Amino acid sequence: MIQSLHVIINGQLIPEKEASLGIDDLSIVRGYGIFDYFKTVANRPVFLEDNLDRFFHSAKLMDLPVHYTRDELRIQIRTLMEANKIPESGIKLLLTGGYSKDGYSIATPNLIITQQPLQRNIRQEQQGIKLITYNYHRPFGTVKSIDYAVGILGLKKAKAAGADEVLYAQNGLLSECPRANIFLITKTGKLLTPGKDVLAGITRKYIIEIAKEHLDVEIRDVTLEDMKNAAEAFISSTTKNITPILSIDDTVYGSNPGPLTIQLQHMLEPIVFGSKEKLITEI
Amino acid sequence: MIQSLHVIINGQLIPEKEASLGIDDLSIVRGYGIFDYFKTVANRPVFLEDNLDRFFHSAKLMDLPVHYTRDELRIQIRTLMEANKIPESGIKLLLTGGYSKDGYSIATPNLIITQQPLQRNIRQEQQGIKLITYNYHRPFGTVKSIDYAVGILGLKKAKAAGADEVLYAQNGLLSECPRANIFLITKTGKLLTPGKDVLAGITRKYIIEIAKEHLDVEIRDVTLEDMKNAAEAFISSTTKNITPILSIDDTVYGSNPGPLTIQLQHMLEPIVFGSKEKLITEI
Repeated sequence: MIQSLHVIINGQLIPEKEASLGIDDLSIVRGYGIFDYFKTVANRPVFLEDNLDRFFHSAKLMDLPVHYTRDELRIQIRTLMEANKIPESGIKLLLTGGYSKDGYSIATPNLIITQQPLQRNIRQEQQGIKLITYNYHRPFGTVKSIDYAVGILGLKKAKAAGADEVLYAQNGLLSECPRANIFLITKTGKLLTPGKDVLAGITRKYIIEIAKEHLDVEIRDVTLEDMKNAAEAFISSTTKNITPILSIDDTVYGSNPGPLTIQLQHMLEPIVFGSKEKLITEI
Repeated sequence: MIQSLHVIINGQLIPEKEASLGIDDLSIVRGYGIFDYFKTVANRPVFLEDNLDRFFHSAKLMDLPVHYTRDELRIQIRTLMEANKIPESGIKLLLTGGYSKDGYSIATPNLIITQQPLQRNIRQEQQGIKLITYNYHRPFGTVKSIDYAVGILGLKKAKAAGADEVLYAQNGLLSECPRANIFLITKTGKLLTPGKDVLAGITRKYIIEIAKEHLDVEIRDVTLEDMKNAAEAFISSTTKNITPILSIDDTVYGSNPGPLTIQLQHMLEPIVFGSKEKLITEI
């Protein structure tokens, strides 16, 4: 066990157990905030620059000013990593709506940076998961908002149906899982993933990059028909990497991960966990 | 100015400036929580029992256990009112997802009760407001969730368009404003209000009750066509009471509140602010 984790709040390194926000923060009273999340592998942040890009993108779209430069954020992250000493971890940057005087207007945001040990769920990546569709589309789809009410209640519904997670679908189109992007592989070997108004997943980005060298990749509206006709399917995220999908609702892709999914897993592995230095930022 | 407001967190009366939540509360990390809000008039809670009903309803639908009985909540509210001594106020009960170990699962909720001075916006109630429609429908529409990201950004869009607030509409149907219910009055004098998957406003409830004595009331799907054809329109909420609508998008109802809207305002007044003792709960 980690004995005493630290966090950074508005630039100050403090013990996690002392870390709090006043109750008028807009995250507490109005669920208003954005975040981003990346992992460290062997004490090095993975895809940090991509995550910072997205963090600033989310903040801008939600009208939240970031009162730190990119360099200052990198330094805060390094400070936190040096204090916590957790080689394999997840680091979250959370930007809230701040202490709002009228309980509704955006104020000066509070920035919280936290780090937690992160254990890979190898079993799930090898064995796959089951999804059920859930009628929803996230507002501000490209924003990594803190708003997970539908996802949290959806997960309960998925578990009750014997599945592992929900997949948002609305008006016949798939969009994403609450915490992961969705990919389909057609019977002719094309890779499909929704491109409109969904989170620009960082793992998704690198999957598309590597897949393009071997497969036709189509970033476009993905329909329930595409889902029913697909040969394979998987989700991607920072914590789940490529996790195969065994079934979505009544559409069963097989009791084992598909062959192209497994190939993509093998190709992604060194990029995320290994040797391709250019993608791992030294800070 | 109120010199030192108090709040109640998990049953404890404390000064507001000391009131905080740990940063792993599910409201902060996942925007997860519900609340309810009522006003006090001359030191008496208005429609408290209705609000407690809805508070428990919201908590149940969002899978949040309430670790206090109704009586205990009443006592906490009275304790807070005695400490703060604000005769005309708004009191909020906020129930969060609690300190989640995995940052996603619902934990033991934190209950925060706050009280703020409340000033009535008489000018707006007399002069009316302008709305613009906004393509959205709240998930879990009957739940008073803390999730206001769309409402907060929507308000900015409304202001930019020279309006005062947004009105959620999707697939040709009106639902509600972010913080108020919507009513239309047809050219034949019928009162229309959406009934499906919208917040069961307490002020809305009493408006329907009083209107039924004088008008045909239809609680049903309300379309954009209904909106365009209506003679009058207004919104209702605990803070806005009946506030007339002057226009929605390009549909102009007139530069002054409509006559039936004004009649309903007069009928609502004694119920909310006045003499009808049965509706004002002594605690």
